[in-house]
Amino acid sequence: MCGIIGIVGKSEVASALYDGLTVLQHRGQDAAGIATVDGARLRLHKARGLVRDVFQRDDMLKLRGRVGIGHCRYPTAGSDDVGEAQPFYVNSPYGIALAHNGNLVNAEAISNELFEGDRRHINTNSDSEVLLNVLAHELQIQDRMSLTPDHLFKAVAGVHERARGGYAVVALVLGYGILAFRDPHGIRPLVLGERDTPEGKEYAVASESVALDILGFRRLRDIEPGEAVLLGFDGSLHHRRCADGYAHTPCIFEYVYLARPDSMIEDVSVYKARLRMGERLAAKIRRLRPDHGIDAVIPIPDTARTAASSLASELGVPMREGFVKNRYIGRTFIMPGQSERVKSVRRKLNAIDLEFRRKTVLLVDDSIVRGTTSKQIIQMAREAGATKVYFASAAPPVRYPNVYGIDMPAPAELVAHNRSEEEVAEALGADWLVYQDLHDLVAAVNEGNEELKNFDTSCFSGEYVTGVQSDYLRELEFSRSDEAKTLKRAS
Amino acid sequence: MCGIIGIVGKSEVASALYDGLTVLQHRGQDAAGIATVDGARLRLHKARGLVRDVFQRDDMLKLRGRVGIGHCRYPTAGSDDVGEAQPFYVNSPYGIALAHNGNLVNAEAISNELFEGDRRHINTNSDSEVLLNVLAHELQIQDRMSLTPDHLFKAVAGVHERARGGYAVVALVLGYGILAFRDPHGIRPLVLGERDTPEGKEYAVASESVALDILGFRRLRDIEPGEAVLLGFDGSLHHRRCADGYAHTPCIFEYVYLARPDSMIEDVSVYKARLRMGERLAAKIRRLRPDHGIDAVIPIPDTARTAASSLASELGVPMREGFVKNRYIGRTFIMPGQSERVKSVRRKLNAIDLEFRRKTVLLVDDSIVRGTTSKQIIQMAREAGATKVYFASAAPPVRYPNVYGIDMPAPAELVAHNRSEEEVAEALGADWLVYQDLHDLVAAVNEGNEELKNFDTSCFSGEYVTGVQSDYLRELEFSRSDEAKTLKRAS
Amino acid sequence: MCGIIGIVGKSEVASALYDGLTVLQHRGQDAAGIATVDGARLRLHKARGLVRDVFQRDDMLKLRGRVGIGHCRYPTAGSDDVGEAQPFYVNSPYGIALAHNGNLVNAEAISNELFEGDRRHINTNSDSEVLLNVLAHELQIQDRMSLTPDHLFKAVAGVHERARGGYAVVALVLGYGILAFRDPHGIRPLVLGERDTPEGKEYAVASESVALDILGFRRLRDIEPGEAVLLGFDGSLHHRRCADGYAHTPCIFEYVYLARPDSMIEDVSVYKARLRMGERLAAKIRRLRPDHGIDAVIPIPDTARTAASSLASELGVPMREGFVKNRYIGRTFIMPGQSERVKSVRRKLNAIDLEFRRKTVLLVDDSIVRGTTSKQIIQMAREAGATKVYFASAAPPVRYPNVYGIDMPAPAELVAHNRSEEEVAEALGADWLVYQDLHDLVAAVNEGNEELKNFDTSCFSGEYVTGVQSDYLRELEFSRSDEAKTLKRAS
Amino acid sequence: MCGIIGIVGKSEVASALYDGLTVLQHRGQDAAGIATVDGARLRLHKARGLVRDVFQRDDMLKLRGRVGIGHCRYPTAGSDDVGEAQPFYVNSPYGIALAHNGNLVNAEAISNELFEGDRRHINTNSDSEVLLNVLAHELQIQDRMSLTPDHLFKAVAGVHERARGGYAVVALVLGYGILAFRDPHGIRPLVLGERDTPEGKEYAVASESVALDILGFRRLRDIEPGEAVLLGFDGSLHHRRCADGYAHTPCIFEYVYLARPDSMIEDVSVYKARLRMGERLAAKIRRLRPDHGIDAVIPIPDTARTAASSLASELGVPMREGFVKNRYIGRTFIMPGQSERVKSVRRKLNAIDLEFRRKTVLLVDDSIVRGTTSKQIIQMAREAGATKVYFASAAPPVRYPNVYGIDMPAPAELVAHNRSEEEVAEALGADWLVYQDLHDLVAAVNEGNEELKNFDTSCFSGEYVTGVQSDYLRELEFSRSDEAKTLKRAS
Repeated sequence: MCGIIGIVGKSEVASALYDGLTVLQHRGQDAAGIATVDGARLRLHKARGLVRDVFQRDDMLKLRGRVGIGHCRYPTAGSDDVGEAQPFYVNSPYGIALAHNGNLVNAEAISNELFEGDRRHINTNSDSEVLLNVLAHELQIQDRMSLTPDHLFKAVAGVHERARGGYAVVALVLGYGILAFRDPHGIRPLVLGERDTPEGKEYAVASESVALDILGFRRLRDIEPGEAVLLGFDGSLHHRRCADGYAHTPCIFEYVYLARPDSMIEDVSVYKARLRMGERLAAKIRRLRPDHGIDAVIPIPDTARTAASSLASELGVPMREGFVKNRYIGRTFIMPGQSERVKSVRRKLNAIDLEFRRKTVLLVDDSIVRGTTSKQIIQMAREAGATKVYFASAAPPVRYPNVYGIDMPAPAELVAHNRSEEEVAEALGADWLVYQDLHDLVAAVNEGNEELKNFDTSCFSGEYVTGVQSDYLRELEFSRSDEAKTLKRAS
Repeated sequence: MCGIIGIVGKSEVASALYDGLTVLQHRGQDAAGIATVDGARLRLHKARGLVRDVFQRDDMLKLRGRVGIGHCRYPTAGSDDVGEAQPFYVNSPYGIALAHNGNLVNAEAISNELFEGDRRHINTNSDSEVLLNVLAHELQIQDRMSLTPDHLFKAVAGVHERARGGYAVVALVLGYGILAFRDPHGIRPLVLGERDTPEGKEYAVASESVALDILGFRRLRDIEPGEAVLLGFDGSLHHRRCADGYAHTPCIFEYVYLARPDSMIEDVSVYKARLRMGERLAAKIRRLRPDHGIDAVIPIPDTARTAASSLASELGVPMREGFVKNRYIGRTFIMPGQSERVKSVRRKLNAIDLEFRRKTVLLVDDSIVRGTTSKQIIQMAREAGATKVYFASAAPPVRYPNVYGIDMPAPAELVAHNRSEEEVAEALGADWLVYQDLHDLVAAVNEGNEELKNFDTSCFSGEYVTGVQSDYLRELEFSRSDEAKTLKRAS
Repeated sequence: MCGIIGIVGKSEVASALYDGLTVLQHRGQDAAGIATVDGARLRLHKARGLVRDVFQRDDMLKLRGRVGIGHCRYPTAGSDDVGEAQPFYVNSPYGIALAHNGNLVNAEAISNELFEGDRRHINTNSDSEVLLNVLAHELQIQDRMSLTPDHLFKAVAGVHERARGGYAVVALVLGYGILAFRDPHGIRPLVLGERDTPEGKEYAVASESVALDILGFRRLRDIEPGEAVLLGFDGSLHHRRCADGYAHTPCIFEYVYLARPDSMIEDVSVYKARLRMGERLAAKIRRLRPDHGIDAVIPIPDTARTAASSLASELGVPMREGFVKNRYIGRTFIMPGQSERVKSVRRKLNAIDLEFRRKTVLLVDDSIVRGTTSKQIIQMAREAGATKVYFASAAPPVRYPNVYGIDMPAPAELVAHNRSEEEVAEALGADWLVYQDLHDLVAAVNEGNEELKNFDTSCFSGEYVTGVQSDYLRELEFSRSDEAKTLKRAS
Repeated sequence: MCGIIGIVGKSEVASALYDGLTVLQHRGQDAAGIATVDGARLRLHKARGLVRDVFQRDDMLKLRGRVGIGHCRYPTAGSDDVGEAQPFYVNSPYGIALAHNGNLVNAEAISNELFEGDRRHINTNSDSEVLLNVLAHELQIQDRMSLTPDHLFKAVAGVHERARGGYAVVALVLGYGILAFRDPHGIRPLVLGERDTPEGKEYAVASESVALDILGFRRLRDIEPGEAVLLGFDGSLHHRRCADGYAHTPCIFEYVYLARPDSMIEDVSVYKARLRMGERLAAKIRRLRPDHGIDAVIPIPDTARTAASSLASELGVPMREGFVKNRYIGRTFIMPGQSERVKSVRRKLNAIDLEFRRKTVLLVDDSIVRGTTSKQIIQMAREAGATKVYFASAAPPVRYPNVYGIDMPAPAELVAHNRSEEEVAEALGADWLVYQDLHDLVAAVNEGNEELKNFDTSCFSGEYVTGVQSDYLRELEFSRSDEAKTLKRAS
């Protein structure tokens, strides 16, 4: 995942971009970057690390200007190279800087086309560089010195024709404005806001509405699927639908885990959606085990806390904070002549024994991916004295890879891949395991906005709204396997 | 506050000290240090910053040895200088490294005595350097080449005679062992644990039991007030009461705010004590306002969550996570020609409007110190649409300085200083404000261990168990004032 | 000044580029960069600082590939920004990285043309970015997927048509080779070499032949004025004259000061040219003052040593190393409440009194620019006890700005600007001052290669071989003034 | 080697210490440190690296005070650990910081005594820590609160009784002054100077007089062997001979290579001594080979230049700068799959072929140690076309280890160890090799100060003025061998 933000302001904008990125940091802690327009110059600073470490005082002072975009990255298909931090920049035509959140499923094909057809060299593994060059090419072939919004929207339409996947994009076009757009299915989120200042209206776009909240921007609306919005340097606001005929299928995983609870996505409160997930899960539990005998509902902090609270309340069982999260996790150092002794989950969580001793507990997590952590947590609960350990997942079994920008392990490493729910329960060592049903998950979100009927649910269902070629999935499986990552790190 | 840890192990100990410090990091994020014994050499690395930033791979590899101590610091009476990170070291006699948590109320007097009487130069403002040199002097005057536990305990008794205040200490004496001791009133916590390994028993001491938990040490007991424990390099364990006739008065603020909920201090579960604080506060609310009309109890994350949950449950009102905490706060950059626009609390917290709109909410915090944040939070709750905003503090009004190692602002900057509860409510803009009563707070802790009858409650009561000279308090008031801090930073 | 290098090798080339740059470091100590071709990827690392500081082990390991270019920079018309280190890179067409030594006198005009005509945004003040984009544009308009040497040479011809100034360029064109070329007047130097390896011939180009020497390349010849050489990735070597009808006028300042003495430029040994400068200066001295009474010739280290040695020998006077150069100059720290006490030249040089006491000394420097240092040195010689202090400059009076890549101060800050030689002598405090005559300087170089009849001597003569617009000179005067630099640093 | 400096000034002293250290940097480039007295506090900053890299603006600002000492280090018997940078500090008694140049031959024995007798733990391999603790102990046993110069000199006398070796020391005693002293044989140099300021006289001591020169201090005299000088904080100057009955035997290698030519050591100009070395060597050459047929004398830059110039002039042969030194040497990077191709000496030196071609050349170096570089240089001269290559060393054959602070390789790695001069010539590949005779070297120095009759010439003669135990030499041989260094680096 990544977080993106763009602002056309009336005064210096760098500190607002910085503050916005810290609020989007949960979407990516690997690298961060900001680009601003300082007169005729593009100012750019990006590096590996957290926002607070990447930008020092001197860097900020160089990011002059009242227009800019920002990005924080969690590596997906790209590598972990420094050079692949965003925004990316090309100087021709016009000078364009671009940052995005998402993933293309045909990046390699486009990349080849770009080189062979358009003589544009793609120097990294980053989809963003591909998107940037497609956009640049679409603007270049229009061959005009002076651009109108119409030309810019035509270029975005050209991008939609070539790019396939999930993407939300902010692009600075020097001399014109910030172009913000979402893929035709609206898979990745992007929201528009405005703020009044004595000097006039300012506009902003961001991955999540929390970034607008903290900066005092009013949330206007989500950018629509396939729509592009142009925040002109002159303060104007233009928008156009640049792709049509596609189903609107936002990523349901945003509601499950990715987004902050205080965000509104597609007019649905993430927080409320999670409360509903808990309620529906409670209903299922009551249905399946009317005499569940659960003494306490215990969330795995932090994300699952919301669903767990409504689940507990619905079940009429107290919720207890049985696990304490360590906020200051360090690295694992293995000293010469030693093997690791501390279980990795113990660096992250500690159990409060009193809440487990001689109780039947229901642990609640937002989802189960590899299962490694869940297994260790269940073990911790037993060691803390629990009589029985039940486990509930607020999302259905994760069985398929995500190809729209969420970095999941290869299918073979997903605990639910090729396993029934009972087999997963056994693998995790739980006395009972209950998953949310997919239609309940969909309903929990849909209830917040009845117009929202379809979602990208591919990691649960294996159905990809954009279509995906099978060799893409095969290659992905390899590249995301632990083996591949180990090889890469070694080289 | 600070966190300390010490281990005498059977194999390399640096990574365990590192892991332990990450779990104690909530007690101090300003600086960290580790000292180990590598044959006849002391290895020491310390610096400003979080544990995860202070120790890089190369630093860790140099910290060889199976015995060591660690420290993380929140600056108290000392300055924020790099040189004042702990542990401190003197090479004569024997070579001693020391780290501590706490504060002395007669450090300046001792420091003068040390120089004039003992020709020991104190080069920093740190109490730790003072304690180290008192200990060193007490060992030096015994004038023996070969030490027995008896000599070491005699030296600790000498420390207790000279030092007045709250302190928990770990000291490495080269060639002998780790000496761990607490002040005669047992104000600051220190706990002892053991772990079995194929090579034999290992011992550890730490500020909080969570550090033992994560490393797989069993908690044996708290070090007693005035007691010293010697973890010999030979694997032996010796202990002795080195001061007598003092009341046992642990710091009650550990239970309110400082300690992690999953810690046991003086055989009292911090988590359970906080639950009881919530229950007693609920009783008071019901007593004062039987028809309180509260729609939701909303904790200020993270510490207050425990007390809020029992308070809500006791009141029969739902608890809602109305505030989301930003985990990635950055610095405040003010760009040229701009003033700050974002309220500081907005960098840390965001309100979920849905939980406030048209509701009477009870916000719960662990305590109220300056009141600045509380005031902004109450304002946020109103902006989010709350009809009425009530505020509850799980601790009584904070009205006096702490002199035993907690860095509180000068009294004049405490919102409750010289104000009645009603006046505080008005100052904060709350529709109603309710504080825990001190006897309820004491009872909430005491219920967990009935032998624990007295506490250091000085910041609530203004009573100092060790006695304090009035000019000490006067000088403290100045040194902790915002003005003094501003002056210092400028110079 | 800058140093450039390019190698098409048969095996990994990064360490050779690094070694080559350390030998060219005297041409620029401000920033350094290397770009290599690693399969289809361009690897690039550049930063402020000396070569030995810019490239750490990890950086080097990323610079994979058997083809690459390198650059070290002394800031000229560009600013001192990090982003302006070279090589520069554009990804369209093909992917091109470029580094150069020199300066354009019409950069601003081209830059405007590039944006308005070709929609190429120039984001820095660097001429290299301008040259790169001109080259990119000339390749782009040929609009072909597959390039032949012919297309590449045509693009270089296009560059020569638009660019006016002195420049020596290395450009990596991905998929093709390294294109190396010099401006039509051959102002800045560039030399070609080859090396035999078991895998075949390797080619290299560099600013000075010393870089070839150290790497074991044989110097083949200088690239001719207006000529381009293509070192194909396939091992081939192509060359063509891409501009005609220009006089060949290499920069004479290379021989005076810039180049290393062990370099051959235009088949002239720099070392021998300097020896001849000394001889001709000796002849002038004997002519003007047959009874000069000089007791010792004392060079200002290091450059002047060569000319001083032949001068001394020709005069029949001993040469003495009266000044010792400090190799480890630090920065100037002015502590609070203090003004600077040490004269700046004293940080760099120390006089050996014995060589001055009661002697008539002739100090010899390669040239006199601002005169500030010369004045202090003359003062030092007097304080060391010299009876009379004569001063000789191996070059004529520097009276005009250099516009072809040498960073000289604004004319008003040149001590010889608008001053007669007698007035300069007085300004410097010398008892006698003797300058080389320009025709002698030219002869000293020309004697090494009789075909070399004309030179760029503009800083002595004010004649610019390329023509320069008067407003360019006016603006240059301002931008190089101390005042402008102070303003810039402040902002 | 190391460089030391100490100043008792009337105003802020840190920048003067910094400037002084840059001028002493040739004595040690491995680490640097400064300690100042700021009221009752000692300020200390030290780290690995060159002076210009170790001290940044912030570090300098913290080094407040008008009294301080500085050090730059070339590692000798100590390790290359950061913790072993100087000055060292102990806080008891009084607070003492110490830095020194030299080496003790009985450090290990003293170190054991210190621990066993005086309970002082020595935590590093550094002799300076040993010296500091001996001094501290000698002050401690006097057991007085208030010190007079007499007590301080008595403590120095105690140091001389225990320490055996060559050492020049500056020690800050808080509250009193800077104590500067030399070992009883006066092996390592130390010079005293004074400067007048409006506020009164300032005193300084330094390893070499150049450091005084650059700071505007007048050289008063060398500290005498066994003498201690006390620069009182009150501006007073006291001195006393603290050891008697020893021969004065300064290290003759200072004149050969270590010291800067512009220094005066023991009233002998290093520069003039080197000129005389050249003259005496010329006499020997004329004696041995009246028809030497030498066409040019070529110095190996930089140190040998002085001796070579007088040698050439005495022989009546021109001196030519046939080698150009690379001032910007980088590290050696070996890329994956490659072996090193460039000879190491080629990174440092380049030959100007014209000066060698078809000539009989005499290369002159200050001394020959391992011979590796000399061999490669002779090879370079041949490749540059020399007909015959003769080699002259301004010092006699180096055959024995130095134990007084110069880091020479183990004897087995000295080319002259167990080899006759002819065998060395053959090993180096020289057509003829001529060494200075030891009595000529002694005479060349002694001529500058006839009172100076004896020297430490141990690396030529194997005679150690302090006496050395044979097992010390054996262990030294191992610890300085390449093998030992390789092992150490690996661990």
